[in-house]
Amino acid sequence: MPTIRDYIQQKAQLVHEELDTYTSHLTDIPQPLLDSMRYSLLAGGKRIRPVLALATAEAFGVEAERILPFACAVEMIHTYSLIHDDLPSMDDDDYRRGKLTNHKVYGEAMAILAGDALLTEAFGLLADGATQAHLPVHTAMTIVREGADLAGARGMVGGQVSDLLAEDRQIALEDLQSIHKRKTGDLIAYSVRMGARVAGVSPGAMHFLSQFAYGIGLAFQIQDDILDVIGDQEKIGKRVGSDEANHKSTYPSLLGLEESKKKLHHCISQAKIALMNIPDCNPGRLMEIADYLMSRDR
Amino acid sequence: MPTIRDYIQQKAQLVHEELDTYTSHLTDIPQPLLDSMRYSLLAGGKRIRPVLALATAEAFGVEAERILPFACAVEMIHTYSLIHDDLPSMDDDDYRRGKLTNHKVYGEAMAILAGDALLTEAFGLLADGATQAHLPVHTAMTIVREGADLAGARGMVGGQVSDLLAEDRQIALEDLQSIHKRKTGDLIAYSVRMGARVAGVSPGAMHFLSQFAYGIGLAFQIQDDILDVIGDQEKIGKRVGSDEANHKSTYPSLLGLEESKKKLHHCISQAKIALMNIPDCNPGRLMEIADYLMSRDR
Repeated sequence: MPTIRDYIQQKAQLVHEELDTYTSHLTDIPQPLLDSMRYSLLAGGKRIRPVLALATAEAFGVEAERILPFACAVEMIHTYSLIHDDLPSMDDDDYRRGKLTNHKVYGEAMAILAGDALLTEAFGLLADGATQAHLPVHTAMTIVREGADLAGARGMVGGQVSDLLAEDRQIALEDLQSIHKRKTGDLIAYSVRMGARVAGVSPGAMHFLSQFAYGIGLAFQIQDDILDVIGDQEKIGKRVGSDEANHKSTYPSLLGLEESKKKLHHCISQAKIALMNIPDCNPGRLMEIADYLMSRDR
Repeated sequence: MPTIRDYIQQKAQLVHEELDTYTSHLTDIPQPLLDSMRYSLLAGGKRIRPVLALATAEAFGVEAERILPFACAVEMIHTYSLIHDDLPSMDDDDYRRGKLTNHKVYGEAMAILAGDALLTEAFGLLADGATQAHLPVHTAMTIVREGADLAGARGMVGGQVSDLLAEDRQIALEDLQSIHKRKTGDLIAYSVRMGARVAGVSPGAMHFLSQFAYGIGLAFQIQDDILDVIGDQEKIGKRVGSDEANHKSTYPSLLGLEESKKKLHHCISQAKIALMNIPDCNPGRLMEIADYLMSRDR
């Protein structure tokens, strides 16, 4: 059996190849737009979200291929959000994953439109996925509606807005958690939940899977904040210390480094406990992913 | 029977009220984001797209209420595209519909995110509409997939990219038509086609409805260009003569004013003829809308 590192890498590779193949076969798109979309989509992120969708489906005995269009949709949504977040009027970042940000290469207008196009295409992929998997109409519509909720104004976009509003000022820990729950947690939860929906799990199981997802989502964010303090710039692919320089509220700034690490461990433990409550679930890989996320150095 | 002007106004009012009610009941959204979304959504556009969706459904005997969530979705997509098109890095417009553009009121970051949120929520509304109308899964998924195609990289977003790439240079008439077909025509076609899909029309009827939609879409764009030359600034709500000042290729600049008017009339005639080919369709209102679009002065 492959190690968890190999498992994640294989799944990430599967998603990468699917995104590459899929977008290289798209026709009737102005070349600079397609280039800009593919530049960020294939920049080699960690692919945590689609890997979670695949691993969740597999935990309930569903083959990875069945969930692949959904997994690619989530990665497109994630990528669009990064492109827009990096824009000069938002976080104004020049580098992402060790490469120039989209707008530094293609210009602001194209970056905005490439983000718009990726977000739009993501919903097309959700429809394709539902059709290919022969999902019942209720399941299919729930996946689309939940995508709008968790990626939109109530979810990820709302989190980004709250994050912008909180810039340059100290905020309370609960506000920070609320921002991260929406900005990062919601799309991670969506990934896990879509995998579970395709597998047709019960509402009870969905409840515990959400606990798992938000637990690792929060842990993921805390680890991001910690890496910004103690991480290796080469590995992360962007400046470290930028949060402090930007006077951003982070877990280390609010709790201190040691307490942040403790909270990280606690989140992961709770996430894993939630998984144990689910019948007919083979949670091995999901548990290992949780541990892996805690130990990552980039 | 109400005049066509009254009919359009009543339907536009129905859509406006639904958008107002729907967004005023949304919870858990940061207030500035919701304000920014509602500012542009309720700025009082012509609502041509949702009115076409409603009128098409009615032409096949489907009640307007059944199509309302879809119609609102299309208006959200249209509104997001206007917000993003007006941004400084794109068309850099300060006024739209006689009011300050979104980013002039809420700032660039919020305008980008409000656009993202409207686009995302639109797909949620498509899912709601399909659920409420008890659409078969194939019809529901086709409406979502076609939304991604016609509003995305292959459609409206692609058209906006081509438009940006054509800035400041003269282009051929066929390139101009290709830009407008995607930038304006595709979303108008989507509106008509979604109304027809909910009504369950045949592929043959869909073919003629698309001809109708692209015909009036092109006419709509030609009229826009003509109004930019001879229109009344007060009525249009934005500067006239801006196309010429921006060295934009337009129908009047490529064909002259008289030829443009002739082409406009030809498009409308062809659109109306297409409607006559459709069995079991009561095309009266759609024909009247086509004539109305040609005669509008704003």
